[in-house]
Amino acid sequence: MRAAAPDDAHLARLGQQLRVDAVRAADAAGSGHPTSAMSAADIAAVLLARHLRYDFDRPDHPGNDRLILSKGHASPLLYAMYKAAGAVDDAELLTFRTRDSRLEGHPTPRLPWVDVATGSLGQGLPIGVGMALAGKALDQIPYRVWVLSGDGEMAEGSVWEAVEHAGQERLDNLVLLIDVNRLGQRGPTRLGGDLGAYARRLEAFGWHTLRVDGHDTAAVDAALAAADATAGRPTAVIAGTDKGHGVAEVQDREGRHGRPLPDAEAAVAELGGRSELRVDVAPPPEVRIRRRPPAQGHRPPVFDRGGQTATRDAYGRALAALGTVRGDVVALDADVGDSTRTEFFGREHPGRAFQFHIAEQQLVAAAVGMASRGWNPFAATFAAFLTRAHDVIRMAAVSHAPIRLVGSHAGVSIGEDGPSQMGLEDLAMMRAVPGSTVLYPCDAPQTARLVAAMADAPGVAYLRTTRSATPVLYGPEDAFPIGGSRVLRSSDRDRACIVAAGVTVHEALGAARLLDREGIAVRVVDAYSVKPVDARTLQQAADATGCLLTAEDHRPQGGLGDAVAEAFSDGRPAPRLVRLGVRGVPASATGAEQLHAVGIDAESIAAAVRLLVAEAMVSP
Amino acid sequence: MRAAAPDDAHLARLGQQLRVDAVRAADAAGSGHPTSAMSAADIAAVLLARHLRYDFDRPDHPGNDRLILSKGHASPLLYAMYKAAGAVDDAELLTFRTRDSRLEGHPTPRLPWVDVATGSLGQGLPIGVGMALAGKALDQIPYRVWVLSGDGEMAEGSVWEAVEHAGQERLDNLVLLIDVNRLGQRGPTRLGGDLGAYARRLEAFGWHTLRVDGHDTAAVDAALAAADATAGRPTAVIAGTDKGHGVAEVQDREGRHGRPLPDAEAAVAELGGRSELRVDVAPPPEVRIRRRPPAQGHRPPVFDRGGQTATRDAYGRALAALGTVRGDVVALDADVGDSTRTEFFGREHPGRAFQFHIAEQQLVAAAVGMASRGWNPFAATFAAFLTRAHDVIRMAAVSHAPIRLVGSHAGVSIGEDGPSQMGLEDLAMMRAVPGSTVLYPCDAPQTARLVAAMADAPGVAYLRTTRSATPVLYGPEDAFPIGGSRVLRSSDRDRACIVAAGVTVHEALGAARLLDREGIAVRVVDAYSVKPVDARTLQQAADATGCLLTAEDHRPQGGLGDAVAEAFSDGRPAPRLVRLGVRGVPASATGAEQLHAVGIDAESIAAAVRLLVAEAMVSP
Repeated sequence: MRAAAPDDAHLARLGQQLRVDAVRAADAAGSGHPTSAMSAADIAAVLLARHLRYDFDRPDHPGNDRLILSKGHASPLLYAMYKAAGAVDDAELLTFRTRDSRLEGHPTPRLPWVDVATGSLGQGLPIGVGMALAGKALDQIPYRVWVLSGDGEMAEGSVWEAVEHAGQERLDNLVLLIDVNRLGQRGPTRLGGDLGAYARRLEAFGWHTLRVDGHDTAAVDAALAAADATAGRPTAVIAGTDKGHGVAEVQDREGRHGRPLPDAEAAVAELGGRSELRVDVAPPPEVRIRRRPPAQGHRPPVFDRGGQTATRDAYGRALAALGTVRGDVVALDADVGDSTRTEFFGREHPGRAFQFHIAEQQLVAAAVGMASRGWNPFAATFAAFLTRAHDVIRMAAVSHAPIRLVGSHAGVSIGEDGPSQMGLEDLAMMRAVPGSTVLYPCDAPQTARLVAAMADAPGVAYLRTTRSATPVLYGPEDAFPIGGSRVLRSSDRDRACIVAAGVTVHEALGAARLLDREGIAVRVVDAYSVKPVDARTLQQAADATGCLLTAEDHRPQGGLGDAVAEAFSDGRPAPRLVRLGVRGVPASATGAEQLHAVGIDAESIAAAVRLLVAEAMVSP
Repeated sequence: MRAAAPDDAHLARLGQQLRVDAVRAADAAGSGHPTSAMSAADIAAVLLARHLRYDFDRPDHPGNDRLILSKGHASPLLYAMYKAAGAVDDAELLTFRTRDSRLEGHPTPRLPWVDVATGSLGQGLPIGVGMALAGKALDQIPYRVWVLSGDGEMAEGSVWEAVEHAGQERLDNLVLLIDVNRLGQRGPTRLGGDLGAYARRLEAFGWHTLRVDGHDTAAVDAALAAADATAGRPTAVIAGTDKGHGVAEVQDREGRHGRPLPDAEAAVAELGGRSELRVDVAPPPEVRIRRRPPAQGHRPPVFDRGGQTATRDAYGRALAALGTVRGDVVALDADVGDSTRTEFFGREHPGRAFQFHIAEQQLVAAAVGMASRGWNPFAATFAAFLTRAHDVIRMAAVSHAPIRLVGSHAGVSIGEDGPSQMGLEDLAMMRAVPGSTVLYPCDAPQTARLVAAMADAPGVAYLRTTRSATPVLYGPEDAFPIGGSRVLRSSDRDRACIVAAGVTVHEALGAARLLDREGIAVRVVDAYSVKPVDARTLQQAADATGCLLTAEDHRPQGGLGDAVAEAFSDGRPAPRLVRLGVRGVPASATGAEQLHAVGIDAESIAAAVRLLVAEAMVSP
């Protein structure tokens, strides 16, 4: 079956080599976590030489197993494996942690064999769940997903969201390897070396568990074989190990986390000296990528101009339509599909709809895993609850993962449910994500267009939707490119420009009508693309009017007001700016009462414009 | 022992009354979640009438039990309980969800009997863990913490962080009541009505579990008594219930979540009609608040001007010193106390130091719980990993909880560890928190002063620290009020002002020196108080120079650049602004290489100032 399966003695020597190379890499760098690599080296040796199926020349081979080093700080172990597999050479190994090296402190997809960045603990398993789901339900290819995890990170709730989901979905293509070296960063882990404690917990969630001595290569080999042979449930191999195994000065000792060995040369000698064993990693099976062919001639949903439709409804309908023309689109829900309208997609494309229950970290991590397999995931929940997944989103950006997130029930306009349900920080969170696209439509046709556009965005794309119905302003012929905006009112007499997005676009138009009656002409810009923002249109408005006012159903920090200010943060002369947003903690009230109370309804906007224009007249 | 213990028939009638009042409240509001209230009504009746010890006239009574309605959408049940206890009247009950009512859609501390806001699911238990820890380790008062949870929210990872921690800490003063009504929002929960599945999971984490019919008041009563009598471990009462119990049209039916009953009048009749039973809730025991008396004459740490100290070191030393003079200060760690330097506190005050392992949601939720008991918690981890707790922080603000968060290892300046470990979004996250204070010191004495100041901040206060040593600029006599700034260089020839904070203050000073040699005088402002920002000093600098440049080791969105822009977002004439920050995804490199690569080192800042000054000369 596989080329040159090494014997146990060879495996033990390979394990030592991985340790030696991890020690050398960290020593060359002057930093890093060699002791965390050393504990898992024998597990890694067995996996690489006997179980992994992977073509290092073709990292995009659809049949490749997936390997996630969830304990990303053990990166020198991963790089030593790559070297043993012939994928990197010794010279590159010793570039570890230096500028421009692919071998970063924690693994990132700058290396073609790394699917997703790790280093924020507890994310490997939930992402692996996404990959394993893709393997079973979407690709339908028998690759296996191996997640090598530390013991300390088992304290993260994200891990237990994944444990629960993998158990329920019976993901027998997923194997969790837990390196129980009993020592965390500042001392013993919660459970220490109690392998049974991990086993009891995982079994309670429906997992198959195996306990082994993680330095007994034959035992590890048997456990991985048993894991591979297990059908109907995921397997966890719980391996008791020593941190810093093989070097007496550091082995199983506290205070040795995250630093090179005191005497690398002596350590290498104690580990048996350098070796250059090469592993012929077993190739993946020949398989074919499976994508549903797109349907022809399907049209996006149509909305009547002058009617009223909630943008969340438009999202659901547009996503369902997009799913018909694009076979790569999948939809992910966290028990709120009836609110976000993700359920519209599920009705039409049940094979590509995934339910994660109330577990937002798993929701987004699964999207990352599926995206890494070439699928185009749209994950939606309330905008407020996407904050649960903030760290997963942050890491998705480090991975350059093309995922699409949708936050519904944005802002105070949701009304009576109160502040716990209001997404008021989501724009700030999503704008600060590097390379992100942030969209906030005000009506249904715009939403539909943006849903289609975001499917091709390069990184993390975010769409913000509104609970209540809003008037349909645009027609099916209107285009809304990412980075654009729409000037909804303008004249050569404009004395200020109101910049709005989403629900406040309608309030801004109302304000403009109120002001018009008083003879104050104002421009209104619909800044549906909050990032990238349409700097040029804003700069033109500033040149024409000298006064900009932003109104957003969001905190004054980090959202639309900040985006507009950033358009003038390149040293150019800046206009007068006023930003209206939600200050303080709102309470329950109707949507209209809320908008008025926080000062972003038409009347409040008009009042602020009056003040701004008056000030500009006094000191132009 | 307790006044007028009602018999079982009375309890059943009380349960019906709570249902009736929940139905009536939601009907009056026209929205809400009565069916989620109805499932838990019998549990609530038994708890209120037979087990809770609470003085509704003295919600600050230190002996009061704590009750957290983690399934916050079932708020009308809580309000119906308050009515039965005589704390609110029927007229107020019917103000549910209206403007200015204390009875919000989801409970908030606008009601004096609500310690913490709920409504973002899965937070009640981790906050309850914080309260229970406070009860045992700090207050040493035998109050019990009752958390009433939904079954759907058991999917949240935050719950399992708490389950693990409560099990490990043997919190037998904590009782989790799980209302297993088997239906989530858009359909069945993950585990449906399988009470055994919950029991297996919880028992694996060391909990005592009891399964009951949640509509059998005698069985619930016995279970709560058994829970109270359990020593050495926390207890979960897993109650099988029907969503919408008691009204055939909605009972145990899908599609009935989050909406009033179709015919409230008929439902009330079916439930036995209105009643006005009053419960004499058992009083708490007489206890005394326990606070360690402050030590006298203790001094904050002293740092040598001209020396080098990392602000994280200064944090650790200052917190330890603060803990000596203030007996209310407690310190919380998530396995990185050696990095954040929280361990300095633990060495001096072991009884007030808490270890939560790698579980950041539990870390921050415990701080919220302890703050609600009057303690002054400082919770620290890497700034990057505080994003894990974003939703807990968001809800802490809704609760107006005075918690102190500290994020270490901020920015690209950490160097080789790479992007997964770099806090680059934390200022954006923390600034958008309503009522927050955001501090970012550049040296050790400033850090020490700000640590003391933040202990008295009214809401969520955040301190950002740097990994590497930075020069000591200030002396022990320098004061750093929240909302202030320091002008480090200024002259009447200044042609621009560099606004910096933290590590970039030193780069800004370097840039000023470079520019000085070229005859370009620049002002340098140390904006250590990022929120509230010192608008007046910035406005003076703008008036004097017309050109402001911000430099921050953070994303350009939502951080210092935004804070400075916001100081000019009130319609006043704005200066030219340039913002330098971290764009794109950094890689591994030394700290100095990182600062240069992203363009925030002294040379890059000087180059940007030159350009800005030149532009201003061309078109002033």
